Amino acid sequence: MRRIVARRAKDCYLALTSPSSFFHRSLSSTSSSSPADSMGSSSKSSSALSVDSINPKVLKCEYAVRGEIVNIAQRLQQELQEKPGSHPFDEILYCNIGNPQSLGQQPITFFREVLALCDHPAILDRSETQGLFSADSIERAWQILDQIPGRATGAYSHSQGIKGLRDTIAAGIAERDGFPADPNDVFLTDGASPAVHMMMQLLISSESDGILCPIPQYPLYSASIALHGGTLVPYYLDEVAGWGLEISDLKKQVEDARSKGITIRALVVINPGNPTGQVLAEDNQREIVDFCKEEGLVLLADEVYQENVYVPDKKFHSFKKIARSMGYGEKDISLVSFQSVSKGYYGECGKRGGYMEVTGFSPNIREQIYKVASVNLCSNISGQILASLVMSPPKVGDESYESYLAEKNGILSSLARRAKTLEDALNSLKGVTCNKAEGAMYLFPRIELPQKAIKAAEAAKTAPDAFYVKRLLHATGIVVVPGSGFGQVPGTWHFRTTILPQEDKIPAIVSRLTEFHQKFMDEFRD
Amino acid sequence: MRRIVARRAKDCYLALTSPSSFFHRSLSSTSSSSPADSMGSSSKSSSALSVDSINPKVLKCEYAVRGEIVNIAQRLQQELQEKPGSHPFDEILYCNIGNPQSLGQQPITFFREVLALCDHPAILDRSETQGLFSADSIERAWQILDQIPGRATGAYSHSQGIKGLRDTIAAGIAERDGFPADPNDVFLTDGASPAVHMMMQLLISSESDGILCPIPQYPLYSASIALHGGTLVPYYLDEVAGWGLEISDLKKQVEDARSKGITIRALVVINPGNPTGQVLAEDNQREIVDFCKEEGLVLLADEVYQENVYVPDKKFHSFKKIARSMGYGEKDISLVSFQSVSKGYYGECGKRGGYMEVTGFSPNIREQIYKVASVNLCSNISGQILASLVMSPPKVGDESYESYLAEKNGILSSLARRAKTLEDALNSLKGVTCNKAEGAMYLFPRIELPQKAIKAAEAAKTAPDAFYVKRLLHATGIVVVPGSGFGQVPGTWHFRTTILPQEDKIPAIVSRLTEFHQKFMDEFRD
Repeated sequence: MRRIVARRAKDCYLALTSPSSFFHRSLSSTSSSSPADSMGSSSKSSSALSVDSINPKVLKCEYAVRGEIVNIAQRLQQELQEKPGSHPFDEILYCNIGNPQSLGQQPITFFREVLALCDHPAILDRSETQGLFSADSIERAWQILDQIPGRATGAYSHSQGIKGLRDTIAAGIAERDGFPADPNDVFLTDGASPAVHMMMQLLISSESDGILCPIPQYPLYSASIALHGGTLVPYYLDEVAGWGLEISDLKKQVEDARSKGITIRALVVINPGNPTGQVLAEDNQREIVDFCKEEGLVLLADEVYQENVYVPDKKFHSFKKIARSMGYGEKDISLVSFQSVSKGYYGECGKRGGYMEVTGFSPNIREQIYKVASVNLCSNISGQILASLVMSPPKVGDESYESYLAEKNGILSSLARRAKTLEDALNSLKGVTCNKAEGAMYLFPRIELPQKAIKAAEAAKTAPDAFYVKRLLHATGIVVVPGSGFGQVPGTWHFRTTILPQEDKIPAIVSRLTEFHQKFMDEFRD
Repeated sequence: MRRIVARRAKDCYLALTSPSSFFHRSLSSTSSSSPADSMGSSSKSSSALSVDSINPKVLKCEYAVRGEIVNIAQRLQQELQEKPGSHPFDEILYCNIGNPQSLGQQPITFFREVLALCDHPAILDRSETQGLFSADSIERAWQILDQIPGRATGAYSHSQGIKGLRDTIAAGIAERDGFPADPNDVFLTDGASPAVHMMMQLLISSESDGILCPIPQYPLYSASIALHGGTLVPYYLDEVAGWGLEISDLKKQVEDARSKGITIRALVVINPGNPTGQVLAEDNQREIVDFCKEEGLVLLADEVYQENVYVPDKKFHSFKKIARSMGYGEKDISLVSFQSVSKGYYGECGKRGGYMEVTGFSPNIREQIYKVASVNLCSNISGQILASLVMSPPKVGDESYESYLAEKNGILSSLARRAKTLEDALNSLKGVTCNKAEGAMYLFPRIELPQKAIKAAEAAKTAPDAFYVKRLLHATGIVVVPGSGFGQVPGTWHFRTTILPQEDKIPAIVSRLTEFHQKFMDEFRD
């Protein structure tokens, strides 16, 4: 199996840069008008904007988790609102995106208390506030305000984020890893996505710059690489080995890319994995660090699911901790770790908070990263505050500690139960196999689709997994994302579902999914 | 004068795309390694990242309002903290950026009440809350929560922003303009900057795509055009005519650019002006609309200072209102209006809220804009809520109305007084002339620098205006931005200062500035 994967990957990576690639489908001709063209058609006939005249990189970019399937879902939802009973389900269940609070997860009370107090500090010394807010949230709000110049939560901050909050975050990283962290290495951002874009913007000059990405991958990476005009060089995770990462395959991909004139700039690793849910083993992480060091690659470590590990035999280790424990310092490896307030047990997607920890870059490169950050002035201050809170939650002895811990453990243990229930349900379906979600928020089952279904999909001019997923949506209201949005070994078909619906909804989801799958298979049996 | 401006502009616009341009100074060689280069140096020697291997567009980008001068200021501030008395001033006065709350402006109470309640809705029905918050803020928070699916303020929203909030914003636009606005045309963003980047990304494919920008301009535009690899085509505002915009000059610039193979995609207008402070006359706006319509250009209207007008004979009119009042509809002109919560009387820079209203684009272009928005998922929800609040503040009869109005008028009338005092002070300096700040938050005085100062600047390898501004900082602690960061007619020198320091600080600023200027002129008198 592994050998087949490697060969297929090798055959297909250059296709990823062409508009007809399996997950970079162009919507139109991507030719831009050359200077010569425009000279001929000067003055008034230069006309309004058309898809032929906009940036072809924008046309090329795709983002499946908010793509066609979500548009259909939104339409169905509107139809349900306008005409209840118009579909064979009562509600749309959005399992397309890791958005826990949209499905009923409650925010952590302490975090919200502090945010509210920082938003309206005028109430901090009012007596009624004591009755409404926990003592430690009031204390924390004061601490945070004291870290903000002029206590101005409505001012632009330093472009890397408020220094005092970066101190807190660095201390949280140091406590997590057991190795020091420097607040000057922390860049606070509006979620992890802008941080990823910032690094891609820095690393990619042209399509001869390659970024190694896992396949399947979170489509932020393919979208960002497309928008910045680079080349996604895929390495395939091995499904039968629990989505393991083989260094020998990585090396082959790199050599092959180089022989074709691609300069590999960076390696993206998502750990815990999205959409795969795997948690990398420590020795595998060490191999990856050594590989990046030897090949001179920037290691872009997507670590936004660091709090989401559900199996007792796996533990999250940051790549920085791994690198430092191998004795590698600033001079040995360039490493960026992305973290977000949107994931973990907090799930505060709407707050758009996050940071990247940037280590092992020369001062003049750091200056360029800072400059790009400064063009957007700063990330939102509530998101900055929240990022400091998730890296420094209540501690033993704080008034909120017990309730905080109960909320956190309640969410994480429920997620673990949901992951297991859905995994078991998927594996019980005929023709479906699904690896365990060791971490993150997703399952990525593989479906063996009958030839008849594949032909029906071809006739409908859609990918077979998208065909399945659309049928599922129309029959059940459940929104999942076709595997082709993430990349998969050619000829295999998957979908990604989150594990996020609340537990009382899981039985209904399982039965609707099971019923749909059986009917689908009956309809298209070869 | 005008003719000279036009000729100089013509001579210099192509230079803007070269690294040695007067406000696009490269920090290093910008050559990227070609595929051929990288092939030769494959495997282990492909080495770590250097400034020669990163994206040359990043190197080329400059952003003066957070550039070198601010770095020096931050260092001086640290020195003052560590060693009070180490400089001839007690504090650094940041007049480099429109960041009102960093200089002591207080947020509007009603807005902050609503934000706090939406951050922690659990307190909404507690009795203590009635005593702490105004009745209409509680009511508004409930209204907003009811507009958010599942009342989940911690969930990702629709990628254009929460529909109910867009309804409110569209209603606010319609009330402002007297013409209908469609909530589906509104894209909520993390401040105006990401919205501008989004449009530049869409419009620019290569350096043969030109964007017409005013000179002087807010350097977000030059930075964004540089990052996206396009060509800034300048049109010069006429300083002696109060920074007026001459359509005949615009036409010349366009024709000249086209003859050189540049396809002009869009025209940027900043109204009220940044850094110039002018408010466009209505008939001038009509000419601009007609020009864009005739030439087939997208009109990018930076209208973030729409609430900041200080003179009785000028009034803000949105370009959409102007276009609609001329009888032009969706099919006639492509228009994007940028608005932000960072400016106005609210000055909520740290909240990173804003929107763009996008009209006159075909559905398939709109789809592309939506896709780019979706890659970043959504803007932060607090910023979205705030954007809805500034477009729908308390109304007559609401409990908060009187206090809201007092806060708003207090801020705006104080800004008008500060603008006048600083303008007068600047005009009283020998060799300095300064147009009136009719609107926005800035003054952009012109300084006649003696040849001796220009030579001293050359010897120090810095632009003459940057030389003056650095001297000013070291002598007084006042941080302003050299005119070269915004662009200016070659051979003229300016700086931009905000009008934002609190009124009690203005007399000291005026006397420090006056004293410095006299000493500087004495030192460098020819």
